[in-house]
Amino acid sequence: MLPISFLVLLLSSILSPSSAADFCVADLSRPANPAGFSCKKASTVTVTDFSFSGLGATGNTGNIMKSAVTPAFCQQFPGLNGLGLSAARLDLGLNGVVPLHTHPAASEVLLVSEGKILAGFISSSNTVYYKTLIKGDLMVFPQGLLHFQVQSGSSPAVAFATFNSPDPGFQITSLSLFGSSLPSPLVEKVTFLDDEQVRKLKRVFGGTGQVLKYRSRLLL
Amino acid sequence: MLPISFLVLLLSSILSPSSAADFCVADLSRPANPAGFSCKKASTVTVTDFSFSGLGATGNTGNIMKSAVTPAFCQQFPGLNGLGLSAARLDLGLNGVVPLHTHPAASEVLLVSEGKILAGFISSSNTVYYKTLIKGDLMVFPQGLLHFQVQSGSSPAVAFATFNSPDPGFQITSLSLFGSSLPSPLVEKVTFLDDEQVRKLKRVFGGTGQVLKYRSRLLL
Amino acid sequence: MLPISFLVLLLSSILSPSSAADFCVADLSRPANPAGFSCKKASTVTVTDFSFSGLGATGNTGNIMKSAVTPAFCQQFPGLNGLGLSAARLDLGLNGVVPLHTHPAASEVLLVSEGKILAGFISSSNTVYYKTLIKGDLMVFPQGLLHFQVQSGSSPAVAFATFNSPDPGFQITSLSLFGSSLPSPLVEKVTFLDDEQVRKLKRVFGGTGQVLKYRSRLLL
Amino acid sequence: MLPISFLVLLLSSILSPSSAADFCVADLSRPANPAGFSCKKASTVTVTDFSFSGLGATGNTGNIMKSAVTPAFCQQFPGLNGLGLSAARLDLGLNGVVPLHTHPAASEVLLVSEGKILAGFISSSNTVYYKTLIKGDLMVFPQGLLHFQVQSGSSPAVAFATFNSPDPGFQITSLSLFGSSLPSPLVEKVTFLDDEQVRKLKRVFGGTGQVLKYRSRLLL
Amino acid sequence: MLPISFLVLLLSSILSPSSAADFCVADLSRPANPAGFSCKKASTVTVTDFSFSGLGATGNTGNIMKSAVTPAFCQQFPGLNGLGLSAARLDLGLNGVVPLHTHPAASEVLLVSEGKILAGFISSSNTVYYKTLIKGDLMVFPQGLLHFQVQSGSSPAVAFATFNSPDPGFQITSLSLFGSSLPSPLVEKVTFLDDEQVRKLKRVFGGTGQVLKYRSRLLL
Amino acid sequence: MLPISFLVLLLSSILSPSSAADFCVADLSRPANPAGFSCKKASTVTVTDFSFSGLGATGNTGNIMKSAVTPAFCQQFPGLNGLGLSAARLDLGLNGVVPLHTHPAASEVLLVSEGKILAGFISSSNTVYYKTLIKGDLMVFPQGLLHFQVQSGSSPAVAFATFNSPDPGFQITSLSLFGSSLPSPLVEKVTFLDDEQVRKLKRVFGGTGQVLKYRSRLLL
Repeated sequence: MLPISFLVLLLSSILSPSSAADFCVADLSRPANPAGFSCKKASTVTVTDFSFSGLGATGNTGNIMKSAVTPAFCQQFPGLNGLGLSAARLDLGLNGVVPLHTHPAASEVLLVSEGKILAGFISSSNTVYYKTLIKGDLMVFPQGLLHFQVQSGSSPAVAFATFNSPDPGFQITSLSLFGSSLPSPLVEKVTFLDDEQVRKLKRVFGGTGQVLKYRSRLLL
Repeated sequence: MLPISFLVLLLSSILSPSSAADFCVADLSRPANPAGFSCKKASTVTVTDFSFSGLGATGNTGNIMKSAVTPAFCQQFPGLNGLGLSAARLDLGLNGVVPLHTHPAASEVLLVSEGKILAGFISSSNTVYYKTLIKGDLMVFPQGLLHFQVQSGSSPAVAFATFNSPDPGFQITSLSLFGSSLPSPLVEKVTFLDDEQVRKLKRVFGGTGQVLKYRSRLLL
Repeated sequence: MLPISFLVLLLSSILSPSSAADFCVADLSRPANPAGFSCKKASTVTVTDFSFSGLGATGNTGNIMKSAVTPAFCQQFPGLNGLGLSAARLDLGLNGVVPLHTHPAASEVLLVSEGKILAGFISSSNTVYYKTLIKGDLMVFPQGLLHFQVQSGSSPAVAFATFNSPDPGFQITSLSLFGSSLPSPLVEKVTFLDDEQVRKLKRVFGGTGQVLKYRSRLLL
Repeated sequence: MLPISFLVLLLSSILSPSSAADFCVADLSRPANPAGFSCKKASTVTVTDFSFSGLGATGNTGNIMKSAVTPAFCQQFPGLNGLGLSAARLDLGLNGVVPLHTHPAASEVLLVSEGKILAGFISSSNTVYYKTLIKGDLMVFPQGLLHFQVQSGSSPAVAFATFNSPDPGFQITSLSLFGSSLPSPLVEKVTFLDDEQVRKLKRVFGGTGQVLKYRSRLLL
Repeated sequence: MLPISFLVLLLSSILSPSSAADFCVADLSRPANPAGFSCKKASTVTVTDFSFSGLGATGNTGNIMKSAVTPAFCQQFPGLNGLGLSAARLDLGLNGVVPLHTHPAASEVLLVSEGKILAGFISSSNTVYYKTLIKGDLMVFPQGLLHFQVQSGSSPAVAFATFNSPDPGFQITSLSLFGSSLPSPLVEKVTFLDDEQVRKLKRVFGGTGQVLKYRSRLLL
Repeated sequence: MLPISFLVLLLSSILSPSSAADFCVADLSRPANPAGFSCKKASTVTVTDFSFSGLGATGNTGNIMKSAVTPAFCQQFPGLNGLGLSAARLDLGLNGVVPLHTHPAASEVLLVSEGKILAGFISSSNTVYYKTLIKGDLMVFPQGLLHFQVQSGSSPAVAFATFNSPDPGFQITSLSLFGSSLPSPLVEKVTFLDDEQVRKLKRVFGGTGQVLKYRSRLLL
């Protein structure tokens, strides 16, 4: 048989090191754009770019939520860049909760791997869908909708979430309201919550908000 | 000159009545799928499918929010189907508010056409961006993030919102929590709000939630 | 209650300053790519990146078209980058016209805010859809199709257009033909217009086109 | 070795006849939606759905344009449905022209297979890009931009166009203006063409337009 | 406080039962199109549409591959329709293998939950990336590329795969070649495999292929 | 008539040199990202960026496959960047073959321009679709599926392929298996091929694979 060098040369000319045809491992040192990060040179890519061991360890649930969310997003796992997927590990201690939240840019599939989890979401028409999930169960949370996970049963729970975006975002409603600098009068105005409730939770979640000054300026 | 009948015949054969090449006016009588509604036959489409007069009238702001949101989504304006856009009118009476909400499937551009509006959004990293907008000002709210609009100044305000989806969704946080059937213990668990606060707002927004029964079953 | 510092630290590590999860304000100083511009560092982003006041003033309609189009595209309003939306203001003096044009990369929703506008579009199968719109009326122009807006009634008109792209493009047919360097013989060949008509409008719109030289070279 | 029947059964259960995973041959008898046509049952699909012989014959160029465009769009070639591609054959007789046109929903790659073709397009900023192409040459026309093809050299020309949409649309500017029902005063208003020119070309291209009646009603 | 009935009525009118804004649970009884299946009426949707228990049980690995792939694709889990995600469970007995395969329409993230798995993929430029994964490890397989999973270590392994498509497809190279009706001479021609090898594996995988008849007709 | 300088100035301000609205010719000297390459400055773009002459010449078929594939992908034809299309020329000598392969990121339309070609693909459910194509025939190969082209008839054949991606990728199954560094025991494990067959084809296609060392380490 004849050598195939001609074909091989030809093919290798098709697939330059900076081609995005197959994959595009994120170069986190350069600015992103709406499609994600710049690609690392293919010659520097190794199998470690496509694998990630950070979800193997139990998260630290010693906090007010008795839970931990460990992300494997594009920042942590650069091989995901451009591939439309990311993941996270959820650890829920006894009475643990991943509070009401959304992922602005992604749907989520949750897989329970230990314990029981009461999980649910609320639709735009204010219908509630929730269920207690056991080991091996899946639940899907449609893009952008409010959802939550609560430890159920008698032992801690572990679950793995997958998202259809390398960078799904994660907006916890109570942190947005009570852990941000949104002034209390505005929080109250846009949620109908009482001032006392807002002040109490701002203290818990570390929110700021120059309350009096703001109130006078905006005449809310 | 020769007749062009051959070409005209040929061209008309390209563009069949059910072609989705140019547009696809929604046939709301048939089920949708993830890409939207089935197309009406092109032969029955008229200019009225592509225009909509429902945003010309002032909305009724005689409600607890002192506001009205009048949608021109695909359901109201079937010509939008498949074209990646929709709109809505916001009327804000004195002290009116469009409470904290998200659009799960769309970004929004707001145009103020009367009065002043204090508008803002909160990012996934709990940073708050807000500003008082006057007539002619635009503000953009990125997809899926919590945002709000509050009447400011001394007169009612009007604004028009446009979305990059024919069906952007509209999830008001307080209605999801207090106007749904999500049981009070779950609301409290996933938001850290007090029981008294939740019960009070459930009464305001009409939420249900067989509270005691549920609490005993789930042992929250 | 325990401090939530662990969770907060963890969350802040998810959302790096260069993350494109929530938004990606354009850094106009760097080259774009097909998905848009590079993101500014999140730490330098402020609410002014997400708002725009340039559409509040009346455009100058003292020109041959008696109209003005003021854009709020990604170049003018960098917060739109990656969010799939942009806007423009149309001012139409008496007898004003936004001539026949297309947006190559976007559909458009038009909202009339003052006066009356006769607006229409033509489909690929040469069907014409047009209507006189009044204040508060919407009309949608499907992506890439020829459309126009003409002042109607007895007073100047104002409208706001929104597009489902941060950079929709704007190709005015008569400017493309008569304000470009396309040689007159080619213009005539591809449009069937008369030479006299083409020469007349080239003078109006400032088009060039080394006419005689070109004609001899191409033997059109 | 053991039989693999279990695996085969399992796999066949994954891929039901109505699955859109691999392909979705158009069932033209049902209404389309913005994503295309419904899929034929996989059990009725044969290789003839994925092949098309209609571009093998020379088109009839005995018309005013001395050209023919033979489409292989989704309507003619149902296997293209959902696959993001379509094609067309161009026949250009001596002095033939495919007049100025756009494809509202697609970019185009042109391959010249016989003769010479002068092809070009005009950008949104009124820059003209044109070139004489010979056999084997490619040219790309970006989505939605005005472009044209003119026979050049001494013999008829043939070319094949491919589009990145199964239904790219095809809007010929002169047919839209002069072969439609757009009233002459409106044509003149939105193009700056002279009345005499418009009337002349309306006679050539068969356009209608109740001219006087319309003029009085709209006061153009 | 005033009743909010007006707002509630208004909002419920936005979100009709057939709206695709939030989700679109597949109605598997109707034909799909390239965007997926038609939506079930929202009034008939329950939480069971959004959850799935079929991945909790160990798959039957008593087959030639000593492995089982249990899908949770749109066909099995209709709530995934339109949400851009699906999942599958992999059971690998001792010496088990998920043979070389691709998913034509999706990238994949693999999570190992028990045992050790040697997993890898091959790029378009014939570079091989493989690694032994342990419990908790993730690996990503870019869209459309050949990849495989092999049981490693001393005990059976379990893994969960997630895909960024509700219907990712699953094409096993050896089944395509040796379990299909592709005639042996063609298999040999397009793979360079020996006739003896092809005949042997056709017997194992149940492939047909009227060998002699075909060979004479095609003169391969 | 008045000068139109105001409008022209305004329009030119809309369309900055780095705008991606119309096109984005690849600057191959900068890193790509998942959406493609950075755009060259519009002021340096000429018509030669949008045309390509490299497919006019016959490819060299003096190799083991008796075929040549000449690409016009984004690397060779930078004007394709961001436009969703690319092309390639296939030359098939007598008995020539483009072996079994996939394009991970694109569907393909093949146009036969000389000779006869037996072309086919295999679906995820192992159904085979193949046909002998003659000059002028088209065939579509759905995204990511295994397909092949074989010279048929009595003379060499030429065909042109178009892809709905500027960078479709090209993965030849036999090169992936036998021309890569995938160790022979792994090749055998994931394909069920015999060791003798694998060793023979590795010699033909130049594959490496430290066979013995590897076998002992992995205990396959």
